[in-house]
Amino acid sequence: MAKIKVGVAGYGTIGQRLADGVAMQDDMELVGIADLAPTLSLQALRERDMIGANGVKYDLYLVDGADEAAFAEKKIPVAGSFADLCQKVDIMLDSAPGGVGAANKANYYEKYGVKAIFQGGEKNSVADVFFHGYANYEKGVDQDYLKLTSCNTTGLIRSVDALDREFGIEKVAITIIRRVADPGDYHRGLTNALQMDKAPSHQAVDLMTIMPHVEATGILVHTPVTHGHIITVLATAKDGKKITKEEALKVFQKHPRIRVVSIDEGFKGNASLFKYARDLGNRRGDMYEIGLWEDSVVESGNDIMYAINIPQESVTIPETIDAIRAAMGMQKTREEGTAATNKNLGIGKFKEI
Amino acid sequence: MAKIKVGVAGYGTIGQRLADGVAMQDDMELVGIADLAPTLSLQALRERDMIGANGVKYDLYLVDGADEAAFAEKKIPVAGSFADLCQKVDIMLDSAPGGVGAANKANYYEKYGVKAIFQGGEKNSVADVFFHGYANYEKGVDQDYLKLTSCNTTGLIRSVDALDREFGIEKVAITIIRRVADPGDYHRGLTNALQMDKAPSHQAVDLMTIMPHVEATGILVHTPVTHGHIITVLATAKDGKKITKEEALKVFQKHPRIRVVSIDEGFKGNASLFKYARDLGNRRGDMYEIGLWEDSVVESGNDIMYAINIPQESVTIPETIDAIRAAMGMQKTREEGTAATNKNLGIGKFKEI
Amino acid sequence: MAKIKVGVAGYGTIGQRLADGVAMQDDMELVGIADLAPTLSLQALRERDMIGANGVKYDLYLVDGADEAAFAEKKIPVAGSFADLCQKVDIMLDSAPGGVGAANKANYYEKYGVKAIFQGGEKNSVADVFFHGYANYEKGVDQDYLKLTSCNTTGLIRSVDALDREFGIEKVAITIIRRVADPGDYHRGLTNALQMDKAPSHQAVDLMTIMPHVEATGILVHTPVTHGHIITVLATAKDGKKITKEEALKVFQKHPRIRVVSIDEGFKGNASLFKYARDLGNRRGDMYEIGLWEDSVVESGNDIMYAINIPQESVTIPETIDAIRAAMGMQKTREEGTAATNKNLGIGKFKEI
Amino acid sequence: MAKIKVGVAGYGTIGQRLADGVAMQDDMELVGIADLAPTLSLQALRERDMIGANGVKYDLYLVDGADEAAFAEKKIPVAGSFADLCQKVDIMLDSAPGGVGAANKANYYEKYGVKAIFQGGEKNSVADVFFHGYANYEKGVDQDYLKLTSCNTTGLIRSVDALDREFGIEKVAITIIRRVADPGDYHRGLTNALQMDKAPSHQAVDLMTIMPHVEATGILVHTPVTHGHIITVLATAKDGKKITKEEALKVFQKHPRIRVVSIDEGFKGNASLFKYARDLGNRRGDMYEIGLWEDSVVESGNDIMYAINIPQESVTIPETIDAIRAAMGMQKTREEGTAATNKNLGIGKFKEI
Repeated sequence: MAKIKVGVAGYGTIGQRLADGVAMQDDMELVGIADLAPTLSLQALRERDMIGANGVKYDLYLVDGADEAAFAEKKIPVAGSFADLCQKVDIMLDSAPGGVGAANKANYYEKYGVKAIFQGGEKNSVADVFFHGYANYEKGVDQDYLKLTSCNTTGLIRSVDALDREFGIEKVAITIIRRVADPGDYHRGLTNALQMDKAPSHQAVDLMTIMPHVEATGILVHTPVTHGHIITVLATAKDGKKITKEEALKVFQKHPRIRVVSIDEGFKGNASLFKYARDLGNRRGDMYEIGLWEDSVVESGNDIMYAINIPQESVTIPETIDAIRAAMGMQKTREEGTAATNKNLGIGKFKEI
Repeated sequence: MAKIKVGVAGYGTIGQRLADGVAMQDDMELVGIADLAPTLSLQALRERDMIGANGVKYDLYLVDGADEAAFAEKKIPVAGSFADLCQKVDIMLDSAPGGVGAANKANYYEKYGVKAIFQGGEKNSVADVFFHGYANYEKGVDQDYLKLTSCNTTGLIRSVDALDREFGIEKVAITIIRRVADPGDYHRGLTNALQMDKAPSHQAVDLMTIMPHVEATGILVHTPVTHGHIITVLATAKDGKKITKEEALKVFQKHPRIRVVSIDEGFKGNASLFKYARDLGNRRGDMYEIGLWEDSVVESGNDIMYAINIPQESVTIPETIDAIRAAMGMQKTREEGTAATNKNLGIGKFKEI
Repeated sequence: MAKIKVGVAGYGTIGQRLADGVAMQDDMELVGIADLAPTLSLQALRERDMIGANGVKYDLYLVDGADEAAFAEKKIPVAGSFADLCQKVDIMLDSAPGGVGAANKANYYEKYGVKAIFQGGEKNSVADVFFHGYANYEKGVDQDYLKLTSCNTTGLIRSVDALDREFGIEKVAITIIRRVADPGDYHRGLTNALQMDKAPSHQAVDLMTIMPHVEATGILVHTPVTHGHIITVLATAKDGKKITKEEALKVFQKHPRIRVVSIDEGFKGNASLFKYARDLGNRRGDMYEIGLWEDSVVESGNDIMYAINIPQESVTIPETIDAIRAAMGMQKTREEGTAATNKNLGIGKFKEI
Repeated sequence: MAKIKVGVAGYGTIGQRLADGVAMQDDMELVGIADLAPTLSLQALRERDMIGANGVKYDLYLVDGADEAAFAEKKIPVAGSFADLCQKVDIMLDSAPGGVGAANKANYYEKYGVKAIFQGGEKNSVADVFFHGYANYEKGVDQDYLKLTSCNTTGLIRSVDALDREFGIEKVAITIIRRVADPGDYHRGLTNALQMDKAPSHQAVDLMTIMPHVEATGILVHTPVTHGHIITVLATAKDGKKITKEEALKVFQKHPRIRVVSIDEGFKGNASLFKYARDLGNRRGDMYEIGLWEDSVVESGNDIMYAINIPQESVTIPETIDAIRAAMGMQKTREEGTAATNKNLGIGKFKEI
């Protein structure tokens, strides 16, 4: 069977990782990436002779308005225009800055009959389906345009969906302790302050869009760190049913994209997970799984409370690959789609030890 | 009526503020402070000719083991020994490092028949009553030894007790976003990490000791900031009763030690409250009230969720002054005791504007 | 003799402190302050019944474009317009945002014949003299428009001017370790990064404007902290003359606006000085002096190297008060002008202990 | 020719990278690593089936006092004891905690006739030579015990040695803006403070030990960041000779272990270099080169001033590999030794683009 041809628009923090993720799939071909300016990320790619993950060559296409001379000055080879790329692919992963995706859809994807997966920065209206690989895979099957949930919502839903499938969840209240910048960011930052957002947080609202039978609300606080958000979740089961710590942990432990960790074994906080991923030798020091602290799980009456870690740079990659599988009809079910993604990304192997 | 004679053991972050708080009471006399070494705080006091808050002179007594020559070198005048101080006071506020208070009780307070109020760092067993000015004032009346709740617990209980008296609370689940160091601390700190504590947090456990009819649990996460903890609280009323946002806000707004603020008026986070207190001209830039963000209050089913700011350096001062009033029997009821404290500390005046 | 009538345009971080500084002078009258919006700082002033430093009432005037209704909603009393204020004063301290000062000069100060002192954010061309109280006081005498150096440059010049008057300095090379935000700032910040500026730093260039016989250069690095810049200075005397550590310290110790401190006595870093100023009971926890670490002073060949701490919020206040004295001709010499400022601000008293 | 057999004692931040560095050499064999406890780094290695850099299997040996059961519980395979490892190697890289290396030498290396390279945490007296690959390679040739310079000193000497060989340097004055913790550290940290060390910094003193003809001094300030120290250097040539910016840059640009970068191309600070190394796909996101900002280089009279970035986790790896080459006599000269190291670590290839 022919490999699905995939392009990536925008080679920023997310786009690089999407390209890497596609390059690791045995049933997909990364046709190329597209960007506007010779960023440090592209200079780094060029220093490696345009070879990215898995030994794959990343061909670069330029979007409208790109300054070709600037790329030439940095000796970064160019393979063509964004229109060229669109004509070579079956589906585009759009990780352009917020708002640009909608314009790309109008100007390119519809014109060239290319399907597209948008990231969380776009409005929901850009897509047919607001998508999560585990929570509503089937809704995305054979659709043209899907939009992914944002990083926090993606990780949050993994855990809530897992509980929901086992116990039936009717209500969640979350506190998001948000990292305020990525490593290498200077344009945004916070110094010695915790900053409030107005409640409810959009992540709670987004969760309700994906899981409409759950009532969700929450408060978000920005913190001056870079290595992963932490979310505390209080989940209430339907009909006053009690969820015990042991039952909840069993559910979390069998989820391939949840890594149950503990303070005692050394995972003292979000920076431990970042360090662990580097020590694993993962490309860019990334981790696809969310962390869930075993020692954070407590019962609150009949409710269950726990804390998860969201590796914001990489957490949405698996669900985006799931989205390709759904939109292209490569696998028709959640079980098959997520399993194929997990196998190719090496997710869940550690569970078997 | 003669003023109550008060001493302060330990002139650290809390002790300085306790001394200031006592100096501001019209029915108390600050007899003296005691410490071990010529710290920067004592050097600063000496630079002001030993004059503290409200124009009061702070006489310094040395605890056992203090190096008198070191004080002489810094030209800090000494009024006597800790035993001297104990013999001059009716009650001692013990803000010595954790564990020292218990030794002081055994070696001094019992010997000289002095009552004492201990801070949160001591074990509960050091005191007759684990005390909070608003939640259990009457339990402390005429007792010899009281122990205060820690900073987070003190502020948390203010808000939960207020809801409890109005609605009857049966359950709370909290997330503590803890500031990891005070301004000027170097011996502890955290750099670019969120650090987990094992759940449940001790603050939830302590709340249950003070308010035994409430089931409480929670998760604590350390963050690398200095200007105030933030706690999110989810409170459940008894018997499935719903608490609306409007009802909750009304309760909070009338509490003298809760300052209801909003993002829109400029209180963007914990550093805004720190700055506001400096701009008020408050001594040391301190604030006695907790902040509560109006825009954080949301309903979660029948439950109410909100976020509060805990100014860790100064929040326990009013409740400690309350404790003097209770232990000395100066006022026999919660209403009278807290009102006297509030009047002398200038708390709640802003409510009347 | 009649008191000099002073206004302050812009009640931000610097403006508040200028108002306080004027209110503390026995030969000046703070006629009023002017601002555009009911900021938290003005809300705090209103909570104190518009009473600022030294028990002085601060009358508020509104600049063009201010929304009167917004002030009324916050119950902040208004005394008149900016034009009203300009007609009541002899001199205006302009601490409006960068660029606004030049417009104010064109539209108000020249029209009403009011002298003005501008802060470092304005272009040098706005003023007749680029001014520093210690380095070139006499140049400002009887002039109409003076511009102050920025916070780092003001503190830096204090130390270099002191050395220069004793030894004759021909060259300095500085490294500025810059705090990136003030306490309470959210609009700017940096998270887990050191950020480079292009060399040479503007502070070195500005020093050469004030002290043209010195060759200065330097590198500035931004750091994610709020409590004071630290600058290391390497100073070279003329004619290959050696400056010893002892000689340099003697010069620093006798300067009223330099506080020589040491790690051993407890001043471990910039946060120690912030804490010390709070413990002194200084309004807003401010400090007018720069700190200079005795244990940082080292000899490099014939050159002398040392580190200073710049309290960015308050360091320019004394030199701005000096500027009023110079421009108004209140004192004709550097010695008299700075002495009058120092006496009224309580600077240098600690030297006498 | 048989490969040199190398062991690594201590699989911490430095030890892991030493093991990786050895695994990448075509003329060395990594016989094994040794450690005391099943740290997160070892758990990560186990999750990768004990396969480290370059596809090499890392055999683990346990040092005295290790709890075998703890390793078994984590399913980490053990190959033997530290004594076993010592008997299999030609040379040991000792990256055990400070002080342990001296004990290892006394108890193992001397007993088994194994050469050893110690890291900067040990006292100089543990070794025959205090070593730097570029500055004094020949002194280490055929010696038994070498000690490496610390991370800051290693990077600093690279740049000063390069200038010295071209111009003859007689004096340097440095300001070290030190990152206070590594990513993943919780046991040390600093929050919202710049902390001073007593001058002169040990790095300046160490430089003089390696380069005794240079007079060096400096000031070190700790900052709350994790991604690389920044050092500003002011270097003075002998005999009053002037060094121009262009001349200095030419020297830096041709050094294989110095990466000349600029703010304009996107390297805004230390976090940019960290991000760039991640984007390069380097294992653990590490970088062996120091960064040197082109836009930081300025002339100060005849002196030259510049700023460098020190990637603290990985910067000493190349010089340690050099040390193996010197001690084992694999290459007899600095040129040959460093060239072999650079080739195997992929250092300097980017220079040729």
